[in-house]
Parts: sequence; C-alpha cells; structure tokens
Amino acid sequence: MTDDTVAAQYLEPVCAAAGVAAGDAIVFASGEQSKTLATCEEIYSGLLERAVARDALLLALGGGVVGDMAGFVAATYLRGVAFAQLPTTLLAQVDSAVGGKTAVNHPLGKNMIGAFYQPECVVADLDALKTLPAQHFTAALAEIIKYGLITDAGFFAWLEENLDALVRHEEQALVHAVHRSCEIKAGVVAQDEFEQSGLRALLNLGHTFGHALETHLGYGHWLHGEAVGCGLALAARLSARCGLIGAADVARIVTLLERAGLPTAVPAGTDAAAVLEAMRRDKKNLGARRRFVLLKSIGSAFISDDVAADDVAQVLAR
Amino acid sequence: MTDDTVAAQYLEPVCAAAGVAAGDAIVFASGEQSKTLATCEEIYSGLLERAVARDALLLALGGGVVGDMAGFVAATYLRGVAFAQLPTTLLAQVDSAVGGKTAVNHPLGKNMIGAFYQPECVVADLDALKTLPAQHFTAALAEIIKYGLITDAGFFAWLEENLDALVRHEEQALVHAVHRSCEIKAGVVAQDEFEQSGLRALLNLGHTFGHALETHLGYGHWLHGEAVGCGLALAARLSARCGLIGAADVARIVTLLERAGLPTAVPAGTDAAAVLEAMRRDKKNLGARRRFVLLKSIGSAFISDDVAADDVAQVLAR
Repeated sequence: MTDDTVAAQYLEPVCAAAGVAAGDAIVFASGEQSKTLATCEEIYSGLLERAVARDALLLALGGGVVGDMAGFVAATYLRGVAFAQLPTTLLAQVDSAVGGKTAVNHPLGKNMIGAFYQPECVVADLDALKTLPAQHFTAALAEIIKYGLITDAGFFAWLEENLDALVRHEEQALVHAVHRSCEIKAGVVAQDEFEQSGLRALLNLGHTFGHALETHLGYGHWLHGEAVGCGLALAARLSARCGLIGAADVARIVTLLERAGLPTAVPAGTDAAAVLEAMRRDKKNLGARRRFVLLKSIGSAFISDDVAADDVAQVLAR
Repeated sequence: MTDDTVAAQYLEPVCAAAGVAAGDAIVFASGEQSKTLATCEEIYSGLLERAVARDALLLALGGGVVGDMAGFVAATYLRGVAFAQLPTTLLAQVDSAVGGKTAVNHPLGKNMIGAFYQPECVVADLDALKTLPAQHFTAALAEIIKYGLITDAGFFAWLEENLDALVRHEEQALVHAVHRSCEIKAGVVAQDEFEQSGLRALLNLGHTFGHALETHLGYGHWLHGEAVGCGLALAARLSARCGLIGAADVARIVTLLERAGLPTAVPAGTDAAAVLEAMRRDKKNLGARRRFVLLKSIGSAFISDDVAADDVAQVLAR
C-alpha cells in the first residue's frame, strides 16, 4: 500500500526487494486529503479483490498519511492482519511509523477514527530521504526537536550543535537524529502503549496547538510538522506565561525552531477564538478540562490540567 | 447507539435506567443493510457532535447488527472507548454480544472489516425477548444447537428434550439455554481470543456454508441464524460424506433443526458453483485451503483442511 508520489520513485525497487508483484500494490492519491474512510474502503476492496488472507503481511510504503491509513486498514481488515512500516519521509521515520497509532481523519477532526495496532517492524531507509522535498525535511525537524524538549536536554543541546549538519543531510548526524528520536519515542510508548497513564501524552507537546491550527487553517495549509513547530513555540510561550520556564529558554527554543526553518507564530489575522474552539473539539480535550503539555525546563515536560483559557488566548493572539 | 426498531420499544426505559438523556442516543435504521462503514461514519459524526470523550462508556442496545457495528465504532472512535453490550435478541444474547468480535460488512463480503474488542460487560435481559418476532427467535436456536454440536453432547440432548419448552419461552428453559450458550462460547473464546490456535474457529461450525449462502442469496433473504441452521445441516451431511458421522447422527441433527423451524436445505435452484465461489472469498478461507469445521460426533467438532471441492459441491447440490 502506497501513494502515487512514492510509487513513482520506490514501488519498483521495493517490490523487487520484497519479492512482490507490482500488480499486488494498492496505490492511492498522495496527500492528507486521501486519509479518509472512503480511501480505506477502496483499499479494502483492493485487498478483497486480490483475495488477501489473514496470514498476509501488508507493507505500508510512504510517509505519515500512508502509514497511518495503511496501519488502520491492517488493524481492521479481516479484524487485523500483520503489517510492516516502510517510512520514506523523515517525519514518518522519527514519529508516525513508531508507536502503533493508526488513524484516518473525519470531517470534524484529524485522526478521530483509528486503532492502536503495532507493526511487525519498522524499516527506515535513510536513502529515501534523498528525494524528500526540503519543506518536508524541515517539518520533521519539529518532532525531532520535540524529543529533546520533552525528555532529553542533552539531545536538545546536540541539536543546537548539529542542526546545520542535519540540514545538510550529513549521514552521521542523520543516523544519530533518527536513531535517538526512535529510541526516545519507543521508550515512552513502551511504558504507556494505550495512553492510559498519561506518560505517552507527553509526546503531544506542541500538538494541541498544532492540531487545532491544522483544523482551523484547513488540512494542507501547513505540513503537520510545520503546525507542530509553531505549536512548540506556542507551548514554550505558554509555559513561560505560566511561570514555568524563563524568557531565555523560550528564546533558545524559538531560535532552534527558526534555524530549522519552522514557523514560530500563528499566521497574521488568525481568529484566536476559532482556534480555541477547534482545540475544544480535539480528542485529547473532549469532555475533559483544557489539557496542555507544558515544559518545566528544556528536557522535562508534564501534563497540566490547570491552564487558564485566557492565557491560551493571549498566546494565540500574540 | 441503537436502531429505530429497538429504539421504539426500549430506548426510553433503558435511558431512564442508565440515567442517560434521550438526546444522547444515536439511532440508525435497523437491518443488516445498515451495517456499513457509511453508517459508522454517521455514528462517528454523532459522537463528535456530542463531544463524546475517551472516558465515555458507549451502550450498544439491540441485536447483532447493532452490537457488531456499535462495537466496531467503540473500537475505532478516538482509537477505542469503553462499551457495554445490551443485547435485545436471542441471537445477540447467546452469540454476537459475547466474545469481542466487532465488524461491518463490505460489498464483497460479510464482516470483512472489524476488530477484536471486548465489551466491559454484557447485560442480557430475557424480558426483551418478549417482543422478539418468532422468526428471529427461531433463527437464534441454530447457534444454541451449534454449541451442543461442537462441544457438549449433554446440552444437545437437553435441547432435544426441552426444545418445545424453549419455543414456548418457558423461563427456566430460556435461562438455561442462554446461560449454557454464553458459558460455552466464553469458554472457547477465553482460550483463543484472537482466533490464532484454531480453537475459536470451532464456533464457525455451519458458518462457512451459512456466510456463503447469505452472500450468494443476498443479505436479507434469510436471517443470519436461518443461514447458519441450513449450514449446520450441510456441515452434518458433509461430515457424513467424509465418513466421520453416521446417517443416524445426521438424522438427529436435521430433526432437531427442523423441529426448531430452521431450513435444512439450500433453496431450490441455488447455483452451487456460485456458492462455492462465495465460499472461496470468505475471509476464513482466503488464501488458505478450503477449511471446514466438521463433526467427529455430536458434541465434538474439529477443523479440517482436507475436504474435496467435489464433496462440498455434492452437499450443496443435493
């Protein structure tokens, strides 16, 4: 299962390497717009027409959209078949392919329909990043920076030192960044796979803002990682507003995000009230008090139920 | 979550008993035709519009269609929320509400999309059966008879003794039949929840034929239980054809099914080849050899990979 953009570049070599006939591939249109139940229905049809059985191994070849949706199809086709993630984008390699979250979007919100379903394995081939558009590479840096922020001040400092090497795709830097990111994410997920203890929710630093901005601005305005980059800057400012971190830490964070080429402020003219409303509908906030992941320091995040709506509005309006 | 038929009779008392506002109910059209991803999409919308959160408990009030589909929605809404089964039909009480199989249909086959997802509890209120149409009561007897056939010769004999009392809805008989059925099913499922060891597959006695007949004749021609009733008779005849049980056992089985009012032969003029083709596409057969649950005796079933297509065709053509 892959999208047409990835198929054009990697379907042939991957099918050859995996010993799969090219006709066994199910290819759909690339982009977040495809990540719907309607596309899943087409994929199910493709699997049934090929008489794919319960003992199959499905391969999800592509970025986050492919992995999320193909993973959801694997979780629900015949009540679940095995699958492997073959992430081709930096974002998928360091984030979405690891941890077993699968999902599709609903008109009322992103990733509202899904399942926790682990792949048999994740194969991250750094060579695939050579064809990745620069904007997508940049977007993924937001998640990599996030891992430093939530749990590893040393990794954050390493990123400050090595960001330029990373942006130049220097292999050693890339290997360390991808490896350490997967390690941190897998470590967090292993302790709270189903998001029950609250630990896994730390991975959502910047995402409450990010998802709400994506919903409000429309999927496709920003790449997911760009929205998260902006969300990280907003979460840093909110943490400072709550008296948790100082202006110097906010400056370090915003500076690193800016060096990476990520947005650090909401687009001019954004309706803060509408973003707040989108946030209210975020599945992580449904029915609960407004929850945010905040920073105690660079390298240490926690969940707060105790954020005033006015502080959030002020940070958005700034 | 319930359908309009059940809602008319039980929505008000159940909402009152559960302390739920009637406006919180999501009601869809009754019938197998509703059991689609499209209906799920409407239910997801209803949940999102009501801002239903991860800490919710969803209630699935109704027969097998409601339970299967509401269970699938519970498994996939926000990557899974808790739910309880409130089965209102005899079939749901003795079969579909127990065991954690959730699913919706696909145009190419029944229950092709789904998840294993256990309810928090199952509440079977025998009073709900008072309004159950006689045909639906009859259909459920097929599954009850199946439990005797696969694992409990004593229960099969009890059914031969007590079928008339059961059909008259005598409470003591009903309590024993529902209780023993749930006990047998839960016992099997507990040993093979995800259908991996093959043990759970014993519950499919009669279902390979039954599903194929439903697909071929069109959903709605027979009730599911009626198709299974016919499937049990066909499985008994196939077991005899394979030299496993004698004509006397086939006669006992067919007699009990007939006394229950269940079909024991395919409709005249049925195209056996087309039914075989539908069977080939059954998810339990996809990619594998033709697998059947056969009887070694009344009260003892096993899985066979070794059934000749011609024997199946002969049994269907008879």
